[in-house]
Amino acid sequence: MLDPREFIRAKRDRRVHAAADLREFIAAYLRREIPDYQVSAWLMAAYLNGLDESETETLTLALLHSGRTFDWQDLGRPSADKHSTGGVGDKISLILAPLVAACGVLVPMVSGRGLGHTGGTLDKLESIPGFRTFLEPDAMRAQLDRIGVVMVGQGPDLAPADGLIYALRDVTSTVEREYFIVPSIVSKKVAEGAGALVYDVKCGSGAFMKTREDAVHLARRLISATRSLGRRAAARVTGMNQPLGVAVGNALEVQETIAVLRGGGPADVRALTLELAALMLSLSGAASVAEAPKRVELALDSGAAWERFVELVRAQGGDPASVERAGGMPAAPVVVPANSARAGVLEAVDSFALGELVVGIGGGRRAKEDQVDPRVGLMVRRRIGDRVAAGDLLAELHLAKADAAAVERARACFRIGDGPAAAPELVIERVD
Amino acid sequence: MLDPREFIRAKRDRRVHAAADLREFIAAYLRREIPDYQVSAWLMAAYLNGLDESETETLTLALLHSGRTFDWQDLGRPSADKHSTGGVGDKISLILAPLVAACGVLVPMVSGRGLGHTGGTLDKLESIPGFRTFLEPDAMRAQLDRIGVVMVGQGPDLAPADGLIYALRDVTSTVEREYFIVPSIVSKKVAEGAGALVYDVKCGSGAFMKTREDAVHLARRLISATRSLGRRAAARVTGMNQPLGVAVGNALEVQETIAVLRGGGPADVRALTLELAALMLSLSGAASVAEAPKRVELALDSGAAWERFVELVRAQGGDPASVERAGGMPAAPVVVPANSARAGVLEAVDSFALGELVVGIGGGRRAKEDQVDPRVGLMVRRRIGDRVAAGDLLAELHLAKADAAAVERARACFRIGDGPAAAPELVIERVD
Repeated sequence: MLDPREFIRAKRDRRVHAAADLREFIAAYLRREIPDYQVSAWLMAAYLNGLDESETETLTLALLHSGRTFDWQDLGRPSADKHSTGGVGDKISLILAPLVAACGVLVPMVSGRGLGHTGGTLDKLESIPGFRTFLEPDAMRAQLDRIGVVMVGQGPDLAPADGLIYALRDVTSTVEREYFIVPSIVSKKVAEGAGALVYDVKCGSGAFMKTREDAVHLARRLISATRSLGRRAAARVTGMNQPLGVAVGNALEVQETIAVLRGGGPADVRALTLELAALMLSLSGAASVAEAPKRVELALDSGAAWERFVELVRAQGGDPASVERAGGMPAAPVVVPANSARAGVLEAVDSFALGELVVGIGGGRRAKEDQVDPRVGLMVRRRIGDRVAAGDLLAELHLAKADAAAVERARACFRIGDGPAAAPELVIERVD
Repeated sequence: MLDPREFIRAKRDRRVHAAADLREFIAAYLRREIPDYQVSAWLMAAYLNGLDESETETLTLALLHSGRTFDWQDLGRPSADKHSTGGVGDKISLILAPLVAACGVLVPMVSGRGLGHTGGTLDKLESIPGFRTFLEPDAMRAQLDRIGVVMVGQGPDLAPADGLIYALRDVTSTVEREYFIVPSIVSKKVAEGAGALVYDVKCGSGAFMKTREDAVHLARRLISATRSLGRRAAARVTGMNQPLGVAVGNALEVQETIAVLRGGGPADVRALTLELAALMLSLSGAASVAEAPKRVELALDSGAAWERFVELVRAQGGDPASVERAGGMPAAPVVVPANSARAGVLEAVDSFALGELVVGIGGGRRAKEDQVDPRVGLMVRRRIGDRVAAGDLLAELHLAKADAAAVERARACFRIGDGPAAAPELVIERVD
């Protein structure tokens, strides 16, 4: 039997784990024979002392085989999914999944909850009244066959060891390590059964990866780990020096999703959605590289993607009126402006701090038991490179109650200088 | 409000904690607002990245003031206590406490359970049928007044934050750091109210401190932290390259205690007990440095210490017959020899591995919920420097059930070479 103290001590002392020990540690945690407090001590030791490539591969397989794996090949259609490494205001999945499904590609999307300072697709979906993010496997299959898309949480069956560890990493500040991130993402994505996987690796102040070099490295590791498990994979490294779009916060982001699906919404959200959707089509074999961009643009502009989204909401128990009707989503009782103290050019946004601010006002979790308030968040009204006058609106805060300190914190996230400042790139690098 | 994730992240990233944050982290843990898994992640981050002197001082005070502090000055007698940093086979406290009490010095001894590979005084006491290691404060005072000695566990009142953290460190492999050890020991010892504190800092393969230099450093830190809180203090750095005495394991060590109290027992156990007892008498002011050794030797050889031990057992609910009568202590059903494979000289004993072996056969804890089997352990039959013939007995294992692997592990702890090997020093350095 594995002694968890000895296992923790090994990593504490920078030793490399034997594959059998690492597998057994994960398996025993899943059987709840090892308590959270020992796993979190190990996570911190590994965070600080590292896991090598072979340990990372062992961890990926241990997480993947901790639960069931899906296979949709008998449905006879190409399938694809996208995973984002997490940014602030990243609501792309909510638009992308119905859009790609509307193009005839199955999207069996399994998403996570908010991790660290970033939001999670599940928390956003659950801000839609009635929306259920858990489906039994048979119901998933039936829904996928009927409307081509499901958007669910991990459930107890899919890479359950990853589910436990992911929640623990979030609350123990052991998130930002490639050798934790790759096994977590790849095990889950491979288990959900899509044939083609597109990774959106975020890069910048609001992302876990701060530099282009780190982000490209992570993209390559995700691709190689996925291919070694027999799936097609490609990645885009995309900018996260400022929030994506305008809305940050669960219900607010759903409203922005609706705007994009109806042909409007922020330009960056629309552009990135189309880029990733086209890649999913081409990678899955549903369209050629030349044809894919036209196909996805048509599906968005024709309203087909919007209709698919409403079908999805209805299929998973959500109230269609809440997304079809203005004012149907939960709204915060207090909306206050954060204005600029000076005139100048918006040179930088501390997106990490904005994400933490949203967690702080109730939109995310500090402990894994915490409840999320779907209503709260902020609307970012200026982009990097914009000129602002003194007193101009920088952002609106949507709050559960008045909170002057939050307004001050929001204001401090915007650095106004003398400029000029170039608008950041949206797609930084394409890794195929 | 303190965000535990941010607090963990600070130490993970090698930042120094503000005193207020560290105090609040400990206080919130004590209120159970912060779960074990966040504290253990912080412990590992601090283990690997360190706490500086000011953080260590803040931690000591936070632990001390997390509960009540005792004061026995109104009883009108000198008081003293001893603390050992933990070794293998260290049963000195059980002999020392009644011995010093028999010399007229109050001994309000608060002890711990087994930590890591070392045994704990509480676990040893609890192997005496009926012995209670928890007393209410009023009962402690009455017993101390009547027989001059109490031997109890920390209880929920005394440095309760240390009690929680100590248990967590044990099972998360975050024991061996001076900046954890000093606050834990000093907060507890100062809280228990003795006027003079003697530290037995163990040094060698079976101790947390492996080198003389580290052990002397720890001794000095313990003394200065104790004096800064207004108590007298002195230390002895003593050898732990081989187990102290013969017995390792809870009931076996109680039997060895009885032998020493009755005038027999291993020479090293007797000698170290007398050394520490004399120091307690002189440091507390009960005897001069010249007089103290004679006083304690007389109390041991006259049977006064033994009588006080029996009184102590009776006072705390233990069955006196179990210590007065041969065969009164719990005994293991299986006793097997570990013999030497070759002839030669015993050059070294891996005392750490011997301690781990006793944990492994049930004599200690792997998780804080584990039960300890009082019966198991081993009797070490050869000392470093002894000549052995092939087939000679090295140790006897006392087991709950037959276990050939344990015998092999025990045998591997003894390194037989061509010699010669010098007998290790018992008292390595006196730090006053």
